[in-house]
Amino acid sequence: MTDIHDLTRRLQKDNGSKIVLYVGDGLGGLPLKPGGKTELETASTPNLDALAQRGVLGMSVPVLPGIAPGSGPGHLGLFGYDPLQYDIGRGVLEALGIDFELTDRDVAVRGNFCTLDDDGNITDRRAGRVASEIASKLCEKLDRIEIPGVEVFVRHVKEYRLVIVIRGDGLGGSVNDTDPQRTGVPPLSPEGKDEPSRRTAEILAEFLRQAAEILKDDRPANLLTMRGIAKMPPIPAFQEVYGTRAAAIAVYPMYRGLARLVGMDILDAGQTLEDQMACLEKNWSDYDFFFIHFKYTDSTGEDGNFEAKVARTEELDSGIPRITALNPDVIIVTGDHSTPAKMKSHSGHAVPTLLAAENCRFDGSQEFGESACRVGELGMFEAKYLMLQALAHAGRLEKYGA
Amino acid sequence: MTDIHDLTRRLQKDNGSKIVLYVGDGLGGLPLKPGGKTELETASTPNLDALAQRGVLGMSVPVLPGIAPGSGPGHLGLFGYDPLQYDIGRGVLEALGIDFELTDRDVAVRGNFCTLDDDGNITDRRAGRVASEIASKLCEKLDRIEIPGVEVFVRHVKEYRLVIVIRGDGLGGSVNDTDPQRTGVPPLSPEGKDEPSRRTAEILAEFLRQAAEILKDDRPANLLTMRGIAKMPPIPAFQEVYGTRAAAIAVYPMYRGLARLVGMDILDAGQTLEDQMACLEKNWSDYDFFFIHFKYTDSTGEDGNFEAKVARTEELDSGIPRITALNPDVIIVTGDHSTPAKMKSHSGHAVPTLLAAENCRFDGSQEFGESACRVGELGMFEAKYLMLQALAHAGRLEKYGA
Repeated sequence: MTDIHDLTRRLQKDNGSKIVLYVGDGLGGLPLKPGGKTELETASTPNLDALAQRGVLGMSVPVLPGIAPGSGPGHLGLFGYDPLQYDIGRGVLEALGIDFELTDRDVAVRGNFCTLDDDGNITDRRAGRVASEIASKLCEKLDRIEIPGVEVFVRHVKEYRLVIVIRGDGLGGSVNDTDPQRTGVPPLSPEGKDEPSRRTAEILAEFLRQAAEILKDDRPANLLTMRGIAKMPPIPAFQEVYGTRAAAIAVYPMYRGLARLVGMDILDAGQTLEDQMACLEKNWSDYDFFFIHFKYTDSTGEDGNFEAKVARTEELDSGIPRITALNPDVIIVTGDHSTPAKMKSHSGHAVPTLLAAENCRFDGSQEFGESACRVGELGMFEAKYLMLQALAHAGRLEKYGA
Repeated sequence: MTDIHDLTRRLQKDNGSKIVLYVGDGLGGLPLKPGGKTELETASTPNLDALAQRGVLGMSVPVLPGIAPGSGPGHLGLFGYDPLQYDIGRGVLEALGIDFELTDRDVAVRGNFCTLDDDGNITDRRAGRVASEIASKLCEKLDRIEIPGVEVFVRHVKEYRLVIVIRGDGLGGSVNDTDPQRTGVPPLSPEGKDEPSRRTAEILAEFLRQAAEILKDDRPANLLTMRGIAKMPPIPAFQEVYGTRAAAIAVYPMYRGLARLVGMDILDAGQTLEDQMACLEKNWSDYDFFFIHFKYTDSTGEDGNFEAKVARTEELDSGIPRITALNPDVIIVTGDHSTPAKMKSHSGHAVPTLLAAENCRFDGSQEFGESACRVGELGMFEAKYLMLQALAHAGRLEKYGA
């Protein structure tokens, strides 16, 4: 199997065309009952429907059929990176989620404050869900830990959650979780699977030794466990593999981080969809590819609020005219996964996808919805191939072979 | 990933059934506007429509979604060879295109006559598109070049284009192009990436030294550059992997060459579709598998002539009755890629495909066209799997596993 990017490196050409990838997070949904409509089908989406009429539809499979992805693999797929090949560790994702700018010399760790009893056994794996005000101060103290030969960063995330980053040369990322996943036992020791990871494990052990000293009087948060210890996977840059200057317009840090991971420039997205569209307009001439992320189709789905997801889908729709007014060569509307309100979670259902471009094989679609996508021209495809369709419809790929 | 041919070698059986693969080159098209019809849908194709009614339809993806293939990868896919695994160099394709019978000891090179100034810098990369009458005589002179230990063949193609073949033992095909892709600089030197290719590079350098001497007074064509230096990829033979005796009926040399590459017998196709059908009838009892190639659906698409492509599609249709009169067990009609008149080029759109056989799961299709193929029984599939469907519907595959 050829790597997709070996192909795009070879075939890419720059014709100055512009592509907009407009992602409604968790866009796909479910009807509540047989014969019913999904959230997208229930919503009034005149702008998306008009786009569907001059575009093509299809169904994107984020990872493999039935597999519900997290935000990381969901977006990597949309960006054309095989989410099974590029496995992003939890620690890395947690760091991306607080806008921490990771380098390739960093090992990122998700930390959980926990409570130890006098025998050193864990009595609470989340330190009683310690308040953020307390935990953030503890993180400031831990951030002062010094270990020779490396830099140490400690950042608070929320409640009992924190991020530790160790920056240095020759560090490996293959270290076990120290969270034993149960109480009544002590935390595990970090152990490295290879020589560079053993060095990381030693540093993390020293970190934990100093942390135990610093936190000894801070019960319930008198220690922390470590999970998802990982380095950034070596990901080839978007510009290198596709030949496009790419920018991300995302309100939430996680999605900025994922875009940064593939080398996109991060623009100031502001706080609202209106802000995002203003950002798009302002930066229109400086980039070839724009990733615009809209969060609330996912969060309302996670809340199990069908009506709220319908309303947020209508808000997503309202962003379209300011995109089409810029006359992009290709506009794609899709999601990174489905988040049906009925399930209150990410799901493995395929994701409705719309692509509009001059050289579409118009498929007679009248509206954008799961039922129409099921019989659309793009068919059912793995998300990792969506970038090929984007580039092809933008005229940015040479012919393969003679 | 299992190799398709490991499977077909294991499952193949010979039940004496016959398969016809009728290829309309560049068959897939585009509607000119939303709501419009493609070339195939516009054409009056009563014979193809009748076949569709007793067959099944689907959409073939030549390489990967969005990727527009050249003729080489397009046909390899139809023949069941993964076009990303079997990468045919430009030199090989150029040799196939003039009916040169390559052996596995050959390195093939696409040559371009160019013009050098007195300082040895290229002033014209195509030697002013030197006339064929002149260039063909120069090729005859170059064909007399002798290099110890190898045989040298030089054949004219058209205008400034020629083919050089070096035949010998232990030659590699990993040598850079000598065409610098711009003027004002000298040609590059051939360099080999490995030991066998370094040997090739030395021979090509000697060829160029002698060519410079021979052509020194032949301005504008006073040297040549080399591109697409390649050996034939080792391709397992059609008969070995599928157990069929296969023959090609193609008017154009390129397609005969591609069929020869996979080990098909090459029949005398004549010059017209009528000639091709007469050839099919004459050889019907001697083979199990026939590849019939029709060029003009592609060339009219390349010309951007929608109406002419419609007319050529109707000509393609007219060939059907003489095929069905022979009562093949399986008849497949498809293209190697799409060539929409709207785009005047090969495109990455999926290709309408029809398969008719006794044991089809008839899908209610009423006519052969992109819209019907979109919802057909074969679904959207990678072209490399089409041969499996052909063999399966011909009863030529055993059950896999017990």
